[in-house]
Amino acid sequence: MQKGKSSIEFENGPRIIGHASVVGKKEGEGPLGNLFDFVEKDPMFGTKTWEEAESRLQKITAETAIHKAGLTPEDIRYLLAGDLLGQLIATSFGVMELQIPLFGLYGACSTMGEAMMLGAILVDGGYADRVLSMASSHFASAEKQFRFPLEYGNQRPFSATWTVTGCGAVVLAKDGDGPKITGVTTGKIVDMGLKDSMNMGACMAPAAADTICQHLKDFDRTSKDYDRIITGDLGVVGKQILLKFLEEKGINIEEQHMDCGIEIFSPSTQDTHAGGSGCGCSASVLSAYVLPRVRSGEWKRVLFVPTGALLSTVSFNEGQSVPGIAHGVVIEA
Amino acid sequence: MQKGKSSIEFENGPRIIGHASVVGKKEGEGPLGNLFDFVEKDPMFGTKTWEEAESRLQKITAETAIHKAGLTPEDIRYLLAGDLLGQLIATSFGVMELQIPLFGLYGACSTMGEAMMLGAILVDGGYADRVLSMASSHFASAEKQFRFPLEYGNQRPFSATWTVTGCGAVVLAKDGDGPKITGVTTGKIVDMGLKDSMNMGACMAPAAADTICQHLKDFDRTSKDYDRIITGDLGVVGKQILLKFLEEKGINIEEQHMDCGIEIFSPSTQDTHAGGSGCGCSASVLSAYVLPRVRSGEWKRVLFVPTGALLSTVSFNEGQSVPGIAHGVVIEA
Repeated sequence: MQKGKSSIEFENGPRIIGHASVVGKKEGEGPLGNLFDFVEKDPMFGTKTWEEAESRLQKITAETAIHKAGLTPEDIRYLLAGDLLGQLIATSFGVMELQIPLFGLYGACSTMGEAMMLGAILVDGGYADRVLSMASSHFASAEKQFRFPLEYGNQRPFSATWTVTGCGAVVLAKDGDGPKITGVTTGKIVDMGLKDSMNMGACMAPAAADTICQHLKDFDRTSKDYDRIITGDLGVVGKQILLKFLEEKGINIEEQHMDCGIEIFSPSTQDTHAGGSGCGCSASVLSAYVLPRVRSGEWKRVLFVPTGALLSTVSFNEGQSVPGIAHGVVIEA
Repeated sequence: MQKGKSSIEFENGPRIIGHASVVGKKEGEGPLGNLFDFVEKDPMFGTKTWEEAESRLQKITAETAIHKAGLTPEDIRYLLAGDLLGQLIATSFGVMELQIPLFGLYGACSTMGEAMMLGAILVDGGYADRVLSMASSHFASAEKQFRFPLEYGNQRPFSATWTVTGCGAVVLAKDGDGPKITGVTTGKIVDMGLKDSMNMGACMAPAAADTICQHLKDFDRTSKDYDRIITGDLGVVGKQILLKFLEEKGINIEEQHMDCGIEIFSPSTQDTHAGGSGCGCSASVLSAYVLPRVRSGEWKRVLFVPTGALLSTVSFNEGQSVPGIAHGVVIEA
């Protein structure tokens, strides 16, 4: 049950009985391209706006995950989902037709962790037999929301990441076949006063360090107890900061660390600078790359730590800093 | 535990051991003015931007609720909170200093219901000893986010509601003195195809009807089992639609129905048209007006059903409809 200051341990951890990932063309051309369930070449996903495209992306991913679990939407008691857009419109219009009771979540790019934590609690506590946890992002809807019109063709510094067009979803159930969620650590907001929205890795790294540190303390473990410690979208800049922050606290995770944002694109051929980002980045890489390795037993225990940068164009333009938050989910074979 | 299709019943319901409400000047001049814990005359709350003002509002409310429960922030294991702004910036910058592990939630004006549902589950399941559930809105930050610059002085149709500057927070605990949360019903998205963002009551009423209907069915109760059925911010237009929708399903709640948006302002003197709205409306009225009546035993059992309209300026300008969602929380003496 309650473990340390910010964690929960599940004795009979909820199972991930189904999972799916759907991504866009660029992600399909990356190193993990052939691992995703579905690569959609049309960035509009057959719709008329970027936001509708992201909604369609969520719907396809949810349906695929439910189908892969051998279920129908009626079998899912609760849906926990979110995206990066103001007022979660990609989620609202994406999941509406599924007609599943909904908990809308916002944790920036940490949302998949938040959705899995709360989903695992609902299942573990007997409040739901099956839930669906999901998060998405879309390059073009995110650029429109946070940065510049695509037509403007703005220059991006090397510290910038590229928002992934992707969505990942997991079906959690009390019993069944699949990896188990055995523990969670809920992050708090960490603000180091950084103000560079083109360097989100640096903004989020301190929060990742805080959550990883708190997690290891709460569970009385070291990094060696994990086959992988997997951050969401720190990218190459954020990764270095994370390792340095942890080193200062006497924790070395160099051997175990993996970042979904670094894995999803090829730095030499895809021109994505520091890597991928967006809540669809960690969610889709989790489903396509991480869970199969846990399922096969190649990795016995991993810590999934998606990280979020808490900003909006309004807060940024008003001169506010960019705080971060990170949530940890332990997944075991 | 699980009750019917979308509900949960708590055998030993979590207690509301502390609650607080803070509002702005206009709300303080309304019929409930002397019931709020604190009325701030400065709409900027001593800050430089509307968003910072709302953050300050959240911080004061959280601290007041925690203090009234006889606790300090360190005693609270999780914070569940949200607001109406894109990327929840009022919440992020409002609660940061409290340093409590955070679940960020977005349910539009239904957020207080979502925060109380998940908070009650965390406490009931033994995952937390104490949590804080909170939601806020601010008239000026919401107008800036969703409508027109205040300086523009736009005309508002009579179906429009006035976003409440207010915040409500409750501290939930396993034991202690205070009203109990004995059940919850999680809403699904209901879309009747309405597109008028100046008539949010009409957009949300079908969702309220759906949740109330599902709730009564799940718990096998009638409206007579409740002293009050309290919607969030339907206003006078939405109220009529709700009553009609339920009447068509053979449910009459006319005697029990109360709407926080109708209660908070005086229609004759405050020029707020259809009433108040915003997630701070139901949250502050719950704390100031509803909970004291349950605590005193005047009301034995109420159903609190805050309602949210799921739109953003982007979805609205792209011609999307305005779907609604509503969550139900049963509170007993």
